[in-house]
Order: sequence, then C-alpha cells, then structure tokens
Amino acid sequence: MTDVLDQDPDYRAAVVDLLGVLALGELMAFERLAEDAKLAPGITDKAELAAMAAAEFHHFERLRDRLVELGEDPAAAMEPFVTALEEFHARTAPNDWLEGLIKAYVGDGIATDFYREVSALVDPRTRELVLEVLEDTGHAEFAVDRVRKAIEADPRMAGRLALWGRRLVGEALSQAQRVAADRDALANLLVSGRVPAGFDLAEVGKMFARLTEAHTRRMAALGLSA
Amino acid sequence: MTDVLDQDPDYRAAVVDLLGVLALGELMAFERLAEDAKLAPGITDKAELAAMAAAEFHHFERLRDRLVELGEDPAAAMEPFVTALEEFHARTAPNDWLEGLIKAYVGDGIATDFYREVSALVDPRTRELVLEVLEDTGHAEFAVDRVRKAIEADPRMAGRLALWGRRLVGEALSQAQRVAADRDALANLLVSGRVPAGFDLAEVGKMFARLTEAHTRRMAALGLSA
Repeated sequence: MTDVLDQDPDYRAAVVDLLGVLALGELMAFERLAEDAKLAPGITDKAELAAMAAAEFHHFERLRDRLVELGEDPAAAMEPFVTALEEFHARTAPNDWLEGLIKAYVGDGIATDFYREVSALVDPRTRELVLEVLEDTGHAEFAVDRVRKAIEADPRMAGRLALWGRRLVGEALSQAQRVAADRDALANLLVSGRVPAGFDLAEVGKMFARLTEAHTRRMAALGLSA
Repeated sequence: MTDVLDQDPDYRAAVVDLLGVLALGELMAFERLAEDAKLAPGITDKAELAAMAAAEFHHFERLRDRLVELGEDPAAAMEPFVTALEEFHARTAPNDWLEGLIKAYVGDGIATDFYREVSALVDPRTRELVLEVLEDTGHAEFAVDRVRKAIEADPRMAGRLALWGRRLVGEALSQAQRVAADRDALANLLVSGRVPAGFDLAEVGKMFARLTEAHTRRMAALGLSA
C-alpha cells in the first residue's frame, strides 16, 4: 500500500500526521501511567500501572518504526501535536489515584474510539497498525474495578468523579478542535476521506454521536453519570 | 536448585530478600526513568529514557514471576525495602536532566556491581536470573554521551556534577547499611555466604574496594572526578 502513500502527497501527509499524533499520544500515555503509578496505594497496583505504561511504550515503538520505514523523522512527525497534548494533560492533571484511573479509562476510551473511526478511512496497512496499537492494555477492566469499589466504599465520591469525567471530555474536545484547525491534511482525511471515500459532514455528526454514546457507556460502567 | 531453597530456610529467606530488593529496585528504576523522561530536552531523548524504563519494568516482571514460582507474595517480598529505597530516591531527587542521567548511570552502576558480587554467592538458578536482570539497558552509553557533551559545552558544570556524584554514593551507602542492619538473612548471605562458602570480612573489604574503583572509573568516563 506504500504506492498510495507515494502517489498522493496530501494523503501521505495525513497518514504521517495520524501516525505522529498517535505516537506522541502513546509516549505521553506512557508518561502519564508511570506518573499515576506513583499514586498507587500499594506495590501490586503500582506494578499493574507500570505494566500498562510499558505496553503503551511498545505501541509507541511500533508507530515510530513505521514512520522511520516511511522515511519520516518521528520527532518531526510528533512535534506539531506537542502543544495540544501537553495542554490537555496539564489541564487535566489528576488530583488523586481515582482521578488518574478515570482519566486513563475515559480519556483513552474516547481517543481509541476516535482513532478506530479514522482507521476505517485509511489504507489497509496503516489501518492494521492503528488497530494494533489501540489494543486495550488491560487498563479498562482494572480502572472500572478500582473506581467502582471506591464508590461503593464512599458513595459521596460519585458527584465529584462524574464532574471530573465531564471536564475530561470538554478538554479533549477543545484540544481536538485545535488540532483539526491546525492540521489540514488530517482534518481532510477525516471529513472528505481519501481511501475509501470518507465521511461526509452528516457522517461526521453520526461519528460524534457514536463517540458520545460510547463515552456514556464507559461512565455508566464506572457507576457515574455522564 | 529449588532443593537448596527448600532445605535451608535461612538461605531461602536470603534469596527471597535478594529477589525482593532487586524487584523493588527495578520497579523504582522504572518510575525514576519515566520521571526523568519528562525532563528530556526533546522527543528523541524522551523516547530513549522511556525505552530504558520499559526495559527495567520487564526485569521487574522476571523477578516477580520467580517470586510467584517460589510460592512467595511479591509485594510482601518487596515491602521490607520500600522505606530505604524511597528514602534514597527522595534524598537524591535530581534537579535537572543531567543530574538525573548521572544518578541513573552512577547509581545503577554501583547497584549492578554490588548485585553482581552477591550473585557469586547464590545457587546457579538464582545467579542466572540476577545476572539477566542486571543487563545494561543501554543507559550507560547514553548517559556518558549526554553528560560529556554538556560538560564540553560548559566546563563550569563539572564541579557541581562531581559533588552530585559523591552525594549519590554517600546516600546509597547509608541506605545499604540500613538494609544490612535490618535484614539479617541478606546480610548473612553476603558475609558468611552459603552457596558456595562466601566472603569473609577481609573479602567484604576487598569487595568494597572493587565497588569504589568501578565507581571512580564511571565518574572518569563522565569526565568528572570521583
């Protein structure tokens, strides 16, 4: 499928953007999970978080290797997204262990759903890699279990944590808008779609509806209202 | 070699201590490298540190799995060393990227040399695992390169960084003494030695001389006086 990438510079730019933002996301997920591991209430939970962090790092490696294979500089491909991702993480720094778990579960959930939607619009080789690095690293089940138990133990927490979930979505959307405004190639990939014929605007609306529904399901799994 | 472990409860306690302190050390090295990755001056350096952190985590996994195989609770085996290791890291929190690199290089260097000495005193199966997890994760070359370049660019740094190296050794020794005082089984393993006949006190003195020499060589490799 490298021919598609060679023949169409706009498409190539979009794929490099996609791999770049995913690679940076994985690298920052690594950092964040490693940071959250420090908040873990015990060594076993710490080790669980560290395992997820290591898995995210290996996803990063796969994306970086693909960028190198395409003749791209991985650092340059990631650079355009540093500000948006750093700002997202700075604005949503968890205050405790539970907020960290929810951020990882809810935030990664939305990101994963979004990238999975995008993967439908790209060539098979890129799609395969994107789907591979989106594989759940075991975080979801772990987070749901820990958050539910904490809310059972102290139901008053639910209000604060539900607000936290809403804040995460708001910040994620605002940074996503920023990226869409800055990166034409990536935005064009999503809206006009290149391979195959992509989403029209009505379809983009439906995609957002799907993302929102999935988010509501995740909040419910945690025992929280969306 | 599990028979040795089954037949001699003191020896078994010493091996569990050894695997526990190593496992905790690897898990904390993971955390520290992930933390240092945040100080990295660019995405490429960040990714290098993250790769080393992931490698340390996989070492931790090997040690944890061996503890489980021996019927031990890994968290319980690590617990006795939490205070000493946390105190070491709290007292030697790097102020910048270079201090972090030196800490990783010099600190891991001493720890690796020490555990390698200990590995001569244990059964072959334990020895093999210890030597495997001590394998260099690529950090040494990376740290030496970055620190030398920084000192070349600004030679006035050398004094501060040399002091930092001395402080690291002092704190490491003081925590090691604490562990030796608290954990009889581990201390007995080193001093009396079980399998094979271990170090006598004169040999312990020589071991310290070897550790000190190796430390001096590492500082010299960085371009610093020990």
